[in-house]
Amino acid sequence: MDKISPSFFRHEGKPIRCKAAICRKAGEALVIEEIHVDPPQAYEVRIKILCTSLCHTDLSFSKLDTGPLVRFPRILGHEAVGVVESIGEHVDGFKQGDVVLPVFHPHCEECRDCKSSKTNWCTRFAEDFLSNTRRYGMASRFKDSSGDDIHHFLFVSSFSEYTVVDMAHLVKICPEIPVDKAILLSCGVSTGVGAAWKVADVEEGSTIAVFGLGAVGLAVGEGARLRGAAKIIGVDLNPKKFELGKKFGFTDFVNPTFCGEQKISEVIKEITGGGVDYSFECIGLTSVLSEAFTSTRTGTGKTIVLGIDKHLEPTNLDSFDLFRGKHVCGSLFGGLKPKLDIPILVNRYLKKELNLDSFITHELNFEEINKAFDLLEQGKSLRCILWMDK
Amino acid sequence: MDKISPSFFRHEGKPIRCKAAICRKAGEALVIEEIHVDPPQAYEVRIKILCTSLCHTDLSFSKLDTGPLVRFPRILGHEAVGVVESIGEHVDGFKQGDVVLPVFHPHCEECRDCKSSKTNWCTRFAEDFLSNTRRYGMASRFKDSSGDDIHHFLFVSSFSEYTVVDMAHLVKICPEIPVDKAILLSCGVSTGVGAAWKVADVEEGSTIAVFGLGAVGLAVGEGARLRGAAKIIGVDLNPKKFELGKKFGFTDFVNPTFCGEQKISEVIKEITGGGVDYSFECIGLTSVLSEAFTSTRTGTGKTIVLGIDKHLEPTNLDSFDLFRGKHVCGSLFGGLKPKLDIPILVNRYLKKELNLDSFITHELNFEEINKAFDLLEQGKSLRCILWMDK
Ligand SMILES: [Zn+2]
Ligand SMILES: [Zn+2]
Ligand SMILES: [Zn+2]
Ligand SMILES: [Zn+2]
Repeated sequence: MDKISPSFFRHEGKPIRCKAAICRKAGEALVIEEIHVDPPQAYEVRIKILCTSLCHTDLSFSKLDTGPLVRFPRILGHEAVGVVESIGEHVDGFKQGDVVLPVFHPHCEECRDCKSSKTNWCTRFAEDFLSNTRRYGMASRFKDSSGDDIHHFLFVSSFSEYTVVDMAHLVKICPEIPVDKAILLSCGVSTGVGAAWKVADVEEGSTIAVFGLGAVGLAVGEGARLRGAAKIIGVDLNPKKFELGKKFGFTDFVNPTFCGEQKISEVIKEITGGGVDYSFECIGLTSVLSEAFTSTRTGTGKTIVLGIDKHLEPTNLDSFDLFRGKHVCGSLFGGLKPKLDIPILVNRYLKKELNLDSFITHELNFEEINKAFDLLEQGKSLRCILWMDK
Repeated sequence: MDKISPSFFRHEGKPIRCKAAICRKAGEALVIEEIHVDPPQAYEVRIKILCTSLCHTDLSFSKLDTGPLVRFPRILGHEAVGVVESIGEHVDGFKQGDVVLPVFHPHCEECRDCKSSKTNWCTRFAEDFLSNTRRYGMASRFKDSSGDDIHHFLFVSSFSEYTVVDMAHLVKICPEIPVDKAILLSCGVSTGVGAAWKVADVEEGSTIAVFGLGAVGLAVGEGARLRGAAKIIGVDLNPKKFELGKKFGFTDFVNPTFCGEQKISEVIKEITGGGVDYSFECIGLTSVLSEAFTSTRTGTGKTIVLGIDKHLEPTNLDSFDLFRGKHVCGSLFGGLKPKLDIPILVNRYLKKELNLDSFITHELNFEEINKAFDLLEQGKSLRCILWMDK
């Protein structure tokens, strides 16, 4: 990053007028509008977004028209890197000019579970994923040109030149890492790598299967590769994903289209001589979760749920298989504690171990955001970096 | 135990004629008959049973009339203590006169998983639970008076004065522990204590809920008590179980009969302010598993499956709850490696820490075995010791 001019901080304590891409109606293109962004309240930080990207969650919520999380108008976006423009009262650990990564998953550092090394669940905050602002309920920091509130999204709302984020959702990062690489650690890639490292705790020589090779699934492979997994099997309907997968250590590929009468789990059991040690469901379908579960080794296999069924169908797992020792668990943000673990991932990137570069398939200007949505929806992009000022 | 007279070993290498309780038809009373017990083959040990007891698995299989595990005539029984009468070739670690505990769950000590500290699943043997003898498939060591084969059960068949057990299913135990206390470690109590210690890894100050207060469920409480759990909540329809439960550290009791409109999970969430850290399903009903799962804390709760649904109904768990970080897993024999962990439990008993005595509610002669079945079925007994020679 270039040096920041002092004029950058001239709006401190006052609203900022800037551009944002607003989702006004389910299924419609986002609209770039001028908005007002209020100054941060206590525990909040106002940041200037340097670049943002999108993941399938943004895509889903741009289309979803029912459910408790649905509301309009709204500023989506939750993968980003920004620079601190101003801070509210009681903000510790952040100062103007800091390069920061917002994360949808909170890390208050004070509650029972934040203090435990066993989990990354923040009991204090994580249960509430419906509010606009972390400590102020439905209060919003965004207003449109008519003075009406605009809703936040996942406590980040990065599809805006400026946004206000609670300090529990922000991680300060080392400015050495290029911001367009750091951005990948804001959601999907961290989730995948974390799932392999923290949730599964993949060991050298073990075998894994990943169902769904989007950015999260590929990142699971990358995490397993760094742990020295012997077999990393990717399952996807799109044959192009295998070439991509090789960059992240995938060794085998199963395309359900070509399995014929055989179940995917049968194919995986053949490849591995009895099933994988770990399977990862990155699609969000109960039926796929059942296959992922069946694909693991009897007695010991562990299945990690990274995708959430849109219809919230209950699980449908073989109870005898479960009874005999299999594990299933979910995790948000790959079991990572953002403030503790993201700096570790940054470090592994700077040491040229963690492959982040290959996730970036496209770069566009922020104004072209609807094109980025199309690329993701058509399966053409993994991550498209949207630059605010280019 | 008294000194063994040398005449005890006089049948070495020859069949032994003795009494056994045979299950000839589903749902009928067992019949005490004279049988022949063959000498042990390689890797096998012939033992004289000193005492045996029964668990719900014996009860279920005495009634079950369809399924791959069903066959008649059969010698049931898998909780016992015995003394080694003779050994086959290649038997390491056992000699005539040793006091031994048979265990339905194998521990070969040589396969990949037996060597791993992560699991008690013996890849080499555990997958086969259908054979009569561990290394000889459907070959049986029992013959009735007409010379016809009698089937084994779970590689133990302890409802007989003599039985033949593979060395992978035998644990040598310290003769200091009274045999009627040691017997409890052969199945149910080890399963419950192990589930609390190894599978859940219950910590000091944590909260647990146990669904179903039979011997396994009560043993889970006992395990959690020894770990210093703050709240140990028992769920059972039988109000008498609470008095019993207090002996094993239970602090709270929920009787579904008196919950009215409230779900059990709601009551548990009230008692614990949000849910227990660990829940244990010890009944074997998919619907109870769902409640046990819901009763755990959002984001971190772990549910351990100790009961198996008779109809093998698939699981029906809330996928959003799972996705957000909950765990579910099963385990056989409480995650314990029999040869390593049973001696540890014996030791905790001898140090007067582990309460085994309170599990024994009845004692009968072996000939009264059908009465022991009735007591268990009517919920009147926890464990009834059946003495062979009293
Ligand atoms: Zn917290
Ligand atoms: Zn995301
Ligand atoms: Zn083994
Ligand atoms: Zn049993």
